[in-house]
Amino acid sequence: MLKVAVVGATGYTGEELTRILLNHPKVEITSLTAKLDEEKKYSEIFPRFLDRCNLVCKNLDVAEVCSKADLIFLALPHGVSMRYVRRFLSEGKRVIDLSADYRLKDKGLYEKWYKIKHVDEDNLKNSIYGLPELYKNKIKKASLIANPGCYSTAALLCCLPSVSRNHFGLSEIIIDAKSGLTGAGRKAHIDLHFSEINENVKAYKVASHQHTPEISQELSAISKQNMQPIFVPHIIPINRGILTTVYLQYKEKISQEYMQDLYKDFYKDSPFVKVLDKDKLPQIKDVVYTNYCHIGLKVDEEKGLVIVVGVIDNLLKGASGQAVENMNIMYGFKQDEGLV
Amino acid sequence: MLKVAVVGATGYTGEELTRILLNHPKVEITSLTAKLDEEKKYSEIFPRFLDRCNLVCKNLDVAEVCSKADLIFLALPHGVSMRYVRRFLSEGKRVIDLSADYRLKDKGLYEKWYKIKHVDEDNLKNSIYGLPELYKNKIKKASLIANPGCYSTAALLCCLPSVSRNHFGLSEIIIDAKSGLTGAGRKAHIDLHFSEINENVKAYKVASHQHTPEISQELSAISKQNMQPIFVPHIIPINRGILTTVYLQYKEKISQEYMQDLYKDFYKDSPFVKVLDKDKLPQIKDVVYTNYCHIGLKVDEEKGLVIVVGVIDNLLKGASGQAVENMNIMYGFKQDEGLV
Amino acid sequence: MLKVAVVGATGYTGEELTRILLNHPKVEITSLTAKLDEEKKYSEIFPRFLDRCNLVCKNLDVAEVCSKADLIFLALPHGVSMRYVRRFLSEGKRVIDLSADYRLKDKGLYEKWYKIKHVDEDNLKNSIYGLPELYKNKIKKASLIANPGCYSTAALLCCLPSVSRNHFGLSEIIIDAKSGLTGAGRKAHIDLHFSEINENVKAYKVASHQHTPEISQELSAISKQNMQPIFVPHIIPINRGILTTVYLQYKEKISQEYMQDLYKDFYKDSPFVKVLDKDKLPQIKDVVYTNYCHIGLKVDEEKGLVIVVGVIDNLLKGASGQAVENMNIMYGFKQDEGLV
Amino acid sequence: MLKVAVVGATGYTGEELTRILLNHPKVEITSLTAKLDEEKKYSEIFPRFLDRCNLVCKNLDVAEVCSKADLIFLALPHGVSMRYVRRFLSEGKRVIDLSADYRLKDKGLYEKWYKIKHVDEDNLKNSIYGLPELYKNKIKKASLIANPGCYSTAALLCCLPSVSRNHFGLSEIIIDAKSGLTGAGRKAHIDLHFSEINENVKAYKVASHQHTPEISQELSAISKQNMQPIFVPHIIPINRGILTTVYLQYKEKISQEYMQDLYKDFYKDSPFVKVLDKDKLPQIKDVVYTNYCHIGLKVDEEKGLVIVVGVIDNLLKGASGQAVENMNIMYGFKQDEGLV
Repeated sequence: MLKVAVVGATGYTGEELTRILLNHPKVEITSLTAKLDEEKKYSEIFPRFLDRCNLVCKNLDVAEVCSKADLIFLALPHGVSMRYVRRFLSEGKRVIDLSADYRLKDKGLYEKWYKIKHVDEDNLKNSIYGLPELYKNKIKKASLIANPGCYSTAALLCCLPSVSRNHFGLSEIIIDAKSGLTGAGRKAHIDLHFSEINENVKAYKVASHQHTPEISQELSAISKQNMQPIFVPHIIPINRGILTTVYLQYKEKISQEYMQDLYKDFYKDSPFVKVLDKDKLPQIKDVVYTNYCHIGLKVDEEKGLVIVVGVIDNLLKGASGQAVENMNIMYGFKQDEGLV
Repeated sequence: MLKVAVVGATGYTGEELTRILLNHPKVEITSLTAKLDEEKKYSEIFPRFLDRCNLVCKNLDVAEVCSKADLIFLALPHGVSMRYVRRFLSEGKRVIDLSADYRLKDKGLYEKWYKIKHVDEDNLKNSIYGLPELYKNKIKKASLIANPGCYSTAALLCCLPSVSRNHFGLSEIIIDAKSGLTGAGRKAHIDLHFSEINENVKAYKVASHQHTPEISQELSAISKQNMQPIFVPHIIPINRGILTTVYLQYKEKISQEYMQDLYKDFYKDSPFVKVLDKDKLPQIKDVVYTNYCHIGLKVDEEKGLVIVVGVIDNLLKGASGQAVENMNIMYGFKQDEGLV
Repeated sequence: MLKVAVVGATGYTGEELTRILLNHPKVEITSLTAKLDEEKKYSEIFPRFLDRCNLVCKNLDVAEVCSKADLIFLALPHGVSMRYVRRFLSEGKRVIDLSADYRLKDKGLYEKWYKIKHVDEDNLKNSIYGLPELYKNKIKKASLIANPGCYSTAALLCCLPSVSRNHFGLSEIIIDAKSGLTGAGRKAHIDLHFSEINENVKAYKVASHQHTPEISQELSAISKQNMQPIFVPHIIPINRGILTTVYLQYKEKISQEYMQDLYKDFYKDSPFVKVLDKDKLPQIKDVVYTNYCHIGLKVDEEKGLVIVVGVIDNLLKGASGQAVENMNIMYGFKQDEGLV
Repeated sequence: MLKVAVVGATGYTGEELTRILLNHPKVEITSLTAKLDEEKKYSEIFPRFLDRCNLVCKNLDVAEVCSKADLIFLALPHGVSMRYVRRFLSEGKRVIDLSADYRLKDKGLYEKWYKIKHVDEDNLKNSIYGLPELYKNKIKKASLIANPGCYSTAALLCCLPSVSRNHFGLSEIIIDAKSGLTGAGRKAHIDLHFSEINENVKAYKVASHQHTPEISQELSAISKQNMQPIFVPHIIPINRGILTTVYLQYKEKISQEYMQDLYKDFYKDSPFVKVLDKDKLPQIKDVVYTNYCHIGLKVDEEKGLVIVVGVIDNLLKGASGQAVENMNIMYGFKQDEGLV
């Protein structure tokens, strides 16, 4: 049994990670930590785990965690993860970091978008961006996984096939994303009050959300050219799920059939991405509580405009599910072990 | 035009009060105040009022408010209202207080349930409990109205007719209330996070909610005996509305028809309470965005158990609507002026 | 008092229309009709109107309605309105039709998109598209108003200023719309079941929704060139409201300031459209239960991409509110009478 | 591997049953049936199962189902199950029926409450009421399980310990239940339209819901006296979950501690029922997507009134989860196999 720790176990991603890992047949959770006024049984914080998890959730003690676990999941806020990664790695542990701290290869870009000084540039270079659909082989051997952002996962999975084979000339990519509220994190804020969100929809951080450079980085890498999509996120009154509507403007006419084949082919070996048949569109409810991404396509052939609709569960394929998928790959388990 | 001020204009009840008063034909709002880091146009805080209200929301300055308004609405937290009421009254102003500070006639009871020392016992004696269905005549001449709590309004309107004529012997009253989230106030707290409330229901403060003594006080007053109902509130994932299911246990058999007549008769002169016909039950959506209370009755004749289902909009009949109704009565306007 | 009838009073738009008209100071409702198995008091169908509306809702009898009302609102399904309009007009009545039957000037286009033969081509020519921001003067004298679709209203208000002054070259318009469920109509369908919609988001009729030609028609008319925007609607689990995110791709660079001025100027005489200041974005909750449209702008100056976010209440500015606004204009009432 | 069929696989309980069984390590689904216009791949009806279930959902052919499966789950409407049970049993199959058809031992009572003639009285006698907390030993050997109703499960689990040891004299039981919408079934009806349910709460079938006699039957059986509780269900705008607030009125004073011990003791061998510590109350979100029931207690010692709050997921412990729990017991699997 692989021994794992969840550092930052009281946020939504930490809770979900713990839920999955508790049921995973190859894994034993040995440590759960969080920033707490006083230590508490984990099931007291989340009664859902009553008699299913008897661990006490403690404040983080790196040495103690290292003595008990071989793989460390960090579900910490941005800027906090990078303070600990070095120490875990130097103890020979492998780390899957769910924060943004190791996603952007360009330290300057990180500091610009997150307004935080990066303090662990060395490990930035060695981190692997944990999107199995792109980097499965690198993930196998990685010591440090930068688990992708939820919006980034949804956006990238919708764009990758197009961008990977760019012979019609892609002139613009517009990503209109709709997300549920667990994506905002488990914190007290008046803007997250039920009555501010319920019966409401809003756009926010229009063309200025911090997941934008992450999406650009990966699209540029695969297309081998500079790609700067427009990304507009919206808040929707649901708990879980992201639906992303992507508008890919080509310079030439393009056929529905061609795109359909391109997407199906690109994901033929990806167990968690399903490209729907022509005329089918995905819904968030089709993937919620699963690690799947469903993708539907509609092409305006005359205009050369491809509309890609993709859905994921932001806490699973968009965060904790993908983290476990990465773990499965790193340790040679079945890629979907514990995830279906 | 009656000149009014809303003190505490940035909570949910303050916002709703402002919305109603802006459309009220007999009233002019002259001051809006709140606890603010910096003064702001009210429509900047609530864009809903853009170009409909050009007032600047200011920090409270009692003298300034007094110079501009004749009637003061206090939509302040419990414990804060009583610090200001004396000053407004001494300037000859009339006050409608939406907090709990003047609802309980017994100062000791207030201090026990709210864990705050009462600092204005003098005015407590003169305050009128602002439930028009009970105290319309006293409200006309009142200087200080203690506007009832939202749960209390719903519970009392369901119980009053029964309690007013107690000849079958009422052995127990159980009030099971279901409320939306604006009732919890507009404040930052992790328990009010959208994802903690959405897709969830919970009971809270079971048989220990602070509206309990207020309900007891009024039921005891009308029945002229000590009544201590059981009150169990629940949180429901909706913005507005309370549905109260009241179980009245009589010591003898009782008929549906008798109860139906009793309720219809009791409310025959109350413009905002509608007793539904036999076999009809009210829903929250029938009264949301109105000042009405709808009541339906179902009697288990053999058991002598009367089930009363009542619905109100917690921000209207349960708070700001009733405050305006009280104002209408105080100033001789039509009771429903500005409210339909 | 203007005497009005609501034909089709039991759908969501009919109910909302009745709610507004009941409170309108210049109007008296004289007839409410619907397709019913048996006639019923309107307040029995919608208990919200208990003691506020004592009319009986009847099956439509054109002669009877004509004898009682001078203005007829038709809140009927598409394809049904056109069977009655001729008869009302020939009796000298004025008609505001909330269906799609008179919106498309091109009969062939109507028949293609709605799959119904148009049976009243004559009146099609004389109908006025009831968007006051475009056709206020024509509305004043109109006998027949084709009240705009909800999506169309939101989309057009976001695009009109841009399209009206096209000197930077607009190469593409993408409209990504998010709508609540009252827009789908009050009918029994498994896809409208609460549990199919709640906690879910989906795109539907991608680039093939029947409001598309209506949007194209009006954008083409004002720009005097053929405009065929891409329109992608989404279903969001809320009752009321549409948020429209519009992406306007220009061929040249364009400044935020220019666009801001253009929009503010275009709507300077439109009482119900508010263009927000720079860096402000609208939310559905700012306009729900009002007839307002709020618009925010964000420009990617380098790319020449203008992102316009607009919000309306689909039942008010998107349907019944706008119908009453049109009535106010037709009869010389204040444009916002009964609407604030 | 145990071969199982799900008959009625397209309702909410059928879908959930299929979801659990697909992941159950001891089971293979061999048939999925439903009433369909044309046969379809199951994953076409529920895209959630894309590439996870390749079965075609067929119209029911009893012979074919019998040739493939040894255990038959019937997730059919009331009145339909009893038409098939005899045939499955006579072929030597075991049956778990999720409908109400075999729950009431008194045929007359069934016919009174369901308004349907019972056509399989013989098997009624042999059926076992599938509540493992009561009948685990009988379930082991049963051929026909009558899986309990969702409301009944929640209500019974809240009442059983009290009723089982009745020495304080229980004078009345009031059950106030709050349920999500999947409990209403997956069918087209205007009352289930999203906008009729969202932002709304209502009581329905007050003291007349068809689960009442089932609750009475089991409470009477365990207490060996006639018990007729009052049951009032409410509709809450959530997808999954029931919260039941039960008021148990005793004739004498009673202590919190006594009740706490009684409940903990009663459920000490029940893996899926958790009695919370003093001062803790359960929430629906603690059990949703699990087969657990959480119970909290609050006692008004003076009044002898015990308030029991219980929560379950109506589709799991209230239906399909409990059906699988019964299967586990019948076949000697671990009681929680495939359920955590």
